[in-house]
Amino acid sequence: MNEVIGYIVKNHDRYLEELESFLRIPSISTDPEHKADMVKAAEFVVEQLRAAGIQDCEIVPTEGHPIVYGERVDSPDKPTVLVYGHYDVQPVDPLDLWTTPPFEPTVRNGKLFARGASDDKGQLLTHIKSAEAFNKTRGSLPVNLKFVLEGEEEIGSAHLEGFLRENVERLAADTVVISDTALFAEGVPSICYGLRGLAYLQIDVTGPKADLHSGSFGGPVANPAFVLAEILASMKDSNGRITIPHFYDDVVELTVEERKAWAGLPFDRDAYMAELGVDDLNGEAGFTPLEQVWARPTLEVNGLVSGFTGKGAKTVLPSKAMAKVSMRLVPNQDPDKIAKLFEEYVRSVAPKSVHVQVQDLHGGQAWVADLSHPALVTAAEAIEKGFGKRPVFQREGGSIPIVATFTELLKAPTVLLGFGLPDENAHAPNENFDLGNFYRGIQSSAYFFELFGEAGKRAS
Amino acid sequence: MNEVIGYIVKNHDRYLEELESFLRIPSISTDPEHKADMVKAAEFVVEQLRAAGIQDCEIVPTEGHPIVYGERVDSPDKPTVLVYGHYDVQPVDPLDLWTTPPFEPTVRNGKLFARGASDDKGQLLTHIKSAEAFNKTRGSLPVNLKFVLEGEEEIGSAHLEGFLRENVERLAADTVVISDTALFAEGVPSICYGLRGLAYLQIDVTGPKADLHSGSFGGPVANPAFVLAEILASMKDSNGRITIPHFYDDVVELTVEERKAWAGLPFDRDAYMAELGVDDLNGEAGFTPLEQVWARPTLEVNGLVSGFTGKGAKTVLPSKAMAKVSMRLVPNQDPDKIAKLFEEYVRSVAPKSVHVQVQDLHGGQAWVADLSHPALVTAAEAIEKGFGKRPVFQREGGSIPIVATFTELLKAPTVLLGFGLPDENAHAPNENFDLGNFYRGIQSSAYFFELFGEAGKRAS
Repeated sequence: MNEVIGYIVKNHDRYLEELESFLRIPSISTDPEHKADMVKAAEFVVEQLRAAGIQDCEIVPTEGHPIVYGERVDSPDKPTVLVYGHYDVQPVDPLDLWTTPPFEPTVRNGKLFARGASDDKGQLLTHIKSAEAFNKTRGSLPVNLKFVLEGEEEIGSAHLEGFLRENVERLAADTVVISDTALFAEGVPSICYGLRGLAYLQIDVTGPKADLHSGSFGGPVANPAFVLAEILASMKDSNGRITIPHFYDDVVELTVEERKAWAGLPFDRDAYMAELGVDDLNGEAGFTPLEQVWARPTLEVNGLVSGFTGKGAKTVLPSKAMAKVSMRLVPNQDPDKIAKLFEEYVRSVAPKSVHVQVQDLHGGQAWVADLSHPALVTAAEAIEKGFGKRPVFQREGGSIPIVATFTELLKAPTVLLGFGLPDENAHAPNENFDLGNFYRGIQSSAYFFELFGEAGKRAS
Repeated sequence: MNEVIGYIVKNHDRYLEELESFLRIPSISTDPEHKADMVKAAEFVVEQLRAAGIQDCEIVPTEGHPIVYGERVDSPDKPTVLVYGHYDVQPVDPLDLWTTPPFEPTVRNGKLFARGASDDKGQLLTHIKSAEAFNKTRGSLPVNLKFVLEGEEEIGSAHLEGFLRENVERLAADTVVISDTALFAEGVPSICYGLRGLAYLQIDVTGPKADLHSGSFGGPVANPAFVLAEILASMKDSNGRITIPHFYDDVVELTVEERKAWAGLPFDRDAYMAELGVDDLNGEAGFTPLEQVWARPTLEVNGLVSGFTGKGAKTVLPSKAMAKVSMRLVPNQDPDKIAKLFEEYVRSVAPKSVHVQVQDLHGGQAWVADLSHPALVTAAEAIEKGFGKRPVFQREGGSIPIVATFTELLKAPTVLLGFGLPDENAHAPNENFDLGNFYRGIQSSAYFFELFGEAGKRAS
């Protein structure tokens, strides 16, 4: 492995430059104005794959953004690793909170700032770059490699599942590797074995057919902004428990062992609060912050708008009010069922004086992995070699809905090798990626391919 | 009076054209970009006054928008009428809900559509045009006339009070006339003898120092949008009563006589709901809609914004949430005291996990008139002649904070001669002014000047 690792170290600067080129493409999947950038990003990924020796590449058109597929299958005797990642990024507003522009990558203090730096362009590139290192040094790869890189992860992966279902044989693999999560903390590498699911909805409340003068009509006429506030506020009780009937029915409770293991992780409550700039933590009573984020369902208001929001005072009784609300789900909650319960609840509490519309914008299943599977055992070894430290086993509060789909379709275990950090502002202004973790991630990927290749040989 | 009324009738079309020219000036006082338009509107008003024989005019600069002052004092023997109005208008958003552009006046079905048509450009012009009719036919006016026309009514009249205080002697008058309210209903002319006051505040809730990923942080970290919804929702109980401690302490309750008189007014609940496009009315339990609007304090959310409000789904835990909230006040509530109670309440219920900022944006006193005063008796006669119908006595839910100031400084009774209609969308898209009421308003103004002139002579 020395020559492979040596190649990686020697090429750090070029790897960084290539990541910066990737980050300069504003591939915001939710914004139709960036449709051409999505194609540009897909083409960039194909170039990178080809340069890494993954010659068999294809840009697969969908009704949304294209899927990049690439493979190098040298021998039926080698085990096969499928790498999944996404080349699309989140929107960038509010733009004025970025220190440097989101699509002009800038290195400060060993961190690369740009939208998509860690979520997920930087992380997906680690596997392409480790493949390149094998190819350029040995002329071969220790495993068969397949890449599925989509452009719709941030908007619900609408067309990925169809692609996977139509290509189950072609995609056959012994394990799926995804790098789209974070280390437990700086210097504490980890393997993520659980993700929360998601149900994301929009509530539109309409009162009077037009905006009214709040003096002439304030009183008898229901105010949609106030009604919306009432509906939202009623969704949690004073213990932070969600009040939607039957919401908790299918929740798998934490085991005593998990709670004990997590209590032993180096979580610094004061540092956590200081980093976020808050003076107190809330959440569901009876659970620690890690338990709340990793294994308890939550409800968040993601956006709110109604009436006059400019400078000064406009005495309007608004006609409409809108909220975007998402719920993070845990194993066994079904996103469709939760979305239905949510809509029924909103309709049951809305007064007759307003009309409500509830739209289900997207959803995804939660997931937990079997820690005893060889792919996870090998991954832990690879991380230990790449980072020089044994990883901890953690879960993640975010959602990668496609993990559940991979598990169902490919019957192969998914390994979440996260190289990000928890404070890298994924989905927020000043997103960044620690360059040390970028390089250690490439090495960990290389060790994983090597060790999984050997494990596969032993098994055959 | 025949020649005066004849002149008004003959000049209807030109009066309309001049009103349209006035409405083409986008004099939005709250928007700094329209500063030049404010000056243009003030200059337009001066031209109109001069053309009406009010030669002694002045544009008085203030630190905000200028005040237009004009007077014609022919004889110390004549009683003096001071007309107050405002040439500024409300903002126009949401622009897409206007059928025709807000500053391109358009007549449809006898109604003139434009921002400011009834609030207050069309209404203030009635008095200038009736003065013109006297001047052009008789060469004199039956009363001494003074005009105070400001450009900051829609943003709290910050500089008017100073002007009034500095010019108390110059402004001395036997009555103040304001046309900035509405008839009780189409075909039911009225005199308004009460107005609600106002306390308008803004709440800013800040949670984490930056927007966060709602998956990775949702749970322990307080969501400012949710906290804001909770704070707002807690401000009213299930009876629609405001829960802020001591909020109702100074409220003057309605008399049995007033409740009886108002119950006799032709209020059609179903037509009211149909016109607004709502299926039910709410408001404070135990009060009719007229009572709620005219004589009970209310609390409205005028605007709300937080997080992601674009199309699609962005899984953000927002850093900030903002609400604009106003309370309509009734006689004897003090806006400063209410603003203080509001701020104390917000601070008392906000959790330690967020920071709240409360700004007092503006306020005004409520007001009620003495119905037995000669100015009000004369006004009722003038309306009867101008509209061919005896007016009813009503109150108004809106605020004209300056009325309380006039009462205090000039010791003269204020007469609210409203020529608008309740459904003319003041402060909303598609604001309009009924042209029949515009013309009848000009005639009523002329009769008021004539009758008040005679009443003054009789009194002297």
